[in-house]
Amino acid sequence: MRDVYIIGIGITTFTRLEYPLSEIAAYASMGALKDAGVDKVDYVLVANMGSARINSQSALGSALVDSLSLTPAGAARIENGPASGASAIKDGFMAVASGMHDTVLVAGAERMREVNNLEATDFVATLTHPMAEYIYGVTLPGHAAMFTRLYMAKYGVTERHLAMVAVKNQNNALLNPNAHLHQEISLAGILDSPEAFTNNPWVAEPIRFFDCCPVSDGGAALILASKEVAQASGRPMIRISGIGQATDTLAVHERDEPTDLMAVRLAAQQAYDMAGIKPKDVDVAELHDAFTILEIAESEEVGFFEKGKGHIALEKGETAIGGRIPINPSGGLKGKGHPVGATGVAQVHEIVTQLRGDAGERQVKKARTGLACNFGGFGNNVIVSTYVREA
Amino acid sequence: MRDVYIIGIGITTFTRLEYPLSEIAAYASMGALKDAGVDKVDYVLVANMGSARINSQSALGSALVDSLSLTPAGAARIENGPASGASAIKDGFMAVASGMHDTVLVAGAERMREVNNLEATDFVATLTHPMAEYIYGVTLPGHAAMFTRLYMAKYGVTERHLAMVAVKNQNNALLNPNAHLHQEISLAGILDSPEAFTNNPWVAEPIRFFDCCPVSDGGAALILASKEVAQASGRPMIRISGIGQATDTLAVHERDEPTDLMAVRLAAQQAYDMAGIKPKDVDVAELHDAFTILEIAESEEVGFFEKGKGHIALEKGETAIGGRIPINPSGGLKGKGHPVGATGVAQVHEIVTQLRGDAGERQVKKARTGLACNFGGFGNNVIVSTYVREA
Repeated sequence: MRDVYIIGIGITTFTRLEYPLSEIAAYASMGALKDAGVDKVDYVLVANMGSARINSQSALGSALVDSLSLTPAGAARIENGPASGASAIKDGFMAVASGMHDTVLVAGAERMREVNNLEATDFVATLTHPMAEYIYGVTLPGHAAMFTRLYMAKYGVTERHLAMVAVKNQNNALLNPNAHLHQEISLAGILDSPEAFTNNPWVAEPIRFFDCCPVSDGGAALILASKEVAQASGRPMIRISGIGQATDTLAVHERDEPTDLMAVRLAAQQAYDMAGIKPKDVDVAELHDAFTILEIAESEEVGFFEKGKGHIALEKGETAIGGRIPINPSGGLKGKGHPVGATGVAQVHEIVTQLRGDAGERQVKKARTGLACNFGGFGNNVIVSTYVREA
Repeated sequence: MRDVYIIGIGITTFTRLEYPLSEIAAYASMGALKDAGVDKVDYVLVANMGSARINSQSALGSALVDSLSLTPAGAARIENGPASGASAIKDGFMAVASGMHDTVLVAGAERMREVNNLEATDFVATLTHPMAEYIYGVTLPGHAAMFTRLYMAKYGVTERHLAMVAVKNQNNALLNPNAHLHQEISLAGILDSPEAFTNNPWVAEPIRFFDCCPVSDGGAALILASKEVAQASGRPMIRISGIGQATDTLAVHERDEPTDLMAVRLAAQQAYDMAGIKPKDVDVAELHDAFTILEIAESEEVGFFEKGKGHIALEKGETAIGGRIPINPSGGLKGKGHPVGATGVAQVHEIVTQLRGDAGERQVKKARTGLACNFGGFGNNVIVSTYVREA
């Protein structure tokens, strides 16, 4: 298997964007192409969840190739719910690793402004079990609320821990110019003050408004390349060292222990084995905090902390920038935003930025090894990938 | 790059199916798993165009893995318009070729019964250029009609040639128990009789009803495997010998010569080069005849006939079963049906069936090398693949 490097990255601001979906993908991609110093690629993969439903556009891969004048490069769209981005990275990795292609553009994009928040919730719920969950009105906030309640009962997580994730990530986002939310928050403001309930109402008890990521538009892109192309580019040599992927039952109630995220655990183990590293070797991580509880649970399942102890590490500041293992320095989905198809790509955009030492005020010092966890469905399709800076 | 073999195939009847989309994919996949003699795979790719829009279901990969109890295998959905099927085969090929996975299930499925024919036309039109075509009401039948008219003017193709494609393919479908249309037709009935205009009205002049494929539900599936796994399976050794993919401008009017299908030509050339073969080495082909004119044009662009001479070869019977290069013995999209995401996979299902010698009454004698052309958009994203029977 050939080694695969990331030689270019690009991103749009995550916010409410005026321009069409294919242009969101195109602007992010133009940044990545410029960063890599290339104007042609061999293959294009676009990660996106809702184009046909929300944006009346299919075959987004062809549209992106056309927008960027990358014809005749082949292209396709990858849709894997919220894990679409990492799925596209995985298939792009295999394209280079196999020798089929030398350069691959992996772009992720979503334009959700066509849907209001209720419609967005219904749209995202299309990833639940069609007969055992969706038809009964289960939503992702509903799933997260039930998961949170079980986690509280079993491991002693409190509302305060959830709020600490929100405060950490949303305030990290203040240091990220591309993040959606640039509003400083505090425990006092969202939990402890007389106005807290008004500021931060229930969405699905015990989950509050500030426990949920925003609905964002945005795009992110990477250029993957063979070792020869990477060396010739003169860009920092950031290698994709491991990729693991695992699925779990689609219906959450069918899992033996619903507080275990087996797909995260398995995907992480596969990625570590492929990379030949251990969790303690990771310097910086982007985890999929669509809801605050998920950052805590994932930080345990990827092996940073013992099961049930993630909230203790959080309390101690171990996951803050400057802590033992900084999580979501970008702001995460919570602060940076969650344009669904872009998210998995944007996580890796941040990891590459960190490993290059280009993260400015949110830089994690001496970061050489990074990890991203892209979480599809309610933990039913998860991709964990690891990255190492070689030079 | 490792060699990749197809060791299992499965298909549903193409028709109006009662069961849900994920079950359509599952039934086809169960056939492929049984045929291959395996009950686990390492990776799952599902080709589908409309799940989120038509069927309110996202992340179909996770749903399929769950239906088949293939957890914890990773999974994703590939959407590439009508070329989704071949796109999934390409990514599956790279998964095995790279050494990342040893066995991959590639399934294609579409359930279009939720949309009536007008809505189906709008849905398929979402693959056109969003700003230069879609908003002006361009449809795929409209594109095909304009293309046909130009082809008639430039190369002397007539309505009779179009009808000959329809008659050939729809009557081939009589020999395929899984085909959608089991209705014998004749030139007399659809073109030459007093009732022909009633039987076969204009859809978009000069395209008539019988020049268009039906709107179908259906699924098809393949098991891809490494050489070691293929040899151990004891199944016939059908190797994926070449895969080429090319894009063209998304807006058809931007092409220098709209009657040239450059993406087909380039993709075919790439596939031949990879396989080390020439067009004359192909024994049987499945081409993407969503409209009758496309079979004629593609038969030229893949190099079976000189440009502008495909209709002459058709007249002479060279593309019939028993002819020099039989095209669409399965019935093609025209007779077998066109459940969009399933089509590219179903084409290869037919090629494997032919190379195995299992095609019964529609068997092409001594078929050792096959070719499939899966045509995305209006020729803006095309995948051509070749297959060879080794043992």
